Amino acid sequence: MQLNLSTDIALRTLIYLGQKDEPATIAEVSEAFDIVKTHLMKVVMQLVAAGVVISERGRNGGIRLAHAPAEISIGDVVRLMESNLALLYCMKEDALNNCCPLMPNCRLRKIFFNAQKAFMDTLDGSTLADLLPGTKAKLKK
Amino acid sequence: MQLNLSTDIALRTLIYLGQKDEPATIAEVSEAFDIVKTHLMKVVMQLVAAGVVISERGRNGGIRLAHAPAEISIGDVVRLMESNLALLYCMKEDALNNCCPLMPNCRLRKIFFNAQKAFMDTLDGSTLADLLPGTKAKLKK
Repeated sequence: MQLNLSTDIALRTLIYLGQKDEPATIAEVSEAFDIVKTHLMKVVMQLVAAGVVISERGRNGGIRLAHAPAEISIGDVVRLMESNLALLYCMKEDALNNCCPLMPNCRLRKIFFNAQKAFMDTLDGSTLADLLPGTKAKLKK
Repeated sequence: MQLNLSTDIALRTLIYLGQKDEPATIAEVSEAFDIVKTHLMKVVMQLVAAGVVISERGRNGGIRLAHAPAEISIGDVVRLMESNLALLYCMKEDALNNCCPLMPNCRLRKIFFNAQKAFMDTLDGSTLADLLPGTKAKLKK
């Protein structure tokens, strides 16, 4: 039970951007977290496409948050980055009624849906703003 | 965010065993769920080693539950089968303080630890007995 590396990178990138007053470059974030640039680029493109991050060209360009940290839900970032939130094979939409002889009356899915809801509810209760205090000093040079 | 296939197999095997009055064979469970035998064997060996399942040799041998379904916690089965419950890289024990410049003051881990606790608390509230009713008719031939 692990989140995608992309989710991990997205969250750390947002924390980094949340602590900066000016746009950051990909090279800068890549170096700060020792993340492969191409992987970071893909993640940033997803964040830009979803309207969480803004990418600006030009001499003083770079990437920055599109909203105030308090408006960026951690649950939404996880939903965006996790391409597959189906904990069990039978929780995938296309698996309904055709993957297991226990279906469709099995209670396994219901229990795991409830557990996942409890998980996401906790994340939905937090925003990027909750992640920022206490870390500011570590990143400022 | 997915559980290991082994966890999936373990849960379905336990549901199967919970519906049988006599021991089941590996071949039988393998066929019922279309699971590769070698993979199922590995999972069953883990369940036997943990004392969740008993394996009996002999003519009427096979595998069966070591406890009543109401005594088998779904949370415990997930903990047993998931070799890695660290959602983020920095949640691994050996990653403390050395994986990210945000450490050790970062609040990311705390939020995800809380979310995971909510997830596991839900599973800890369920036992194998909760998974059995309603599925009996599907498996009996």
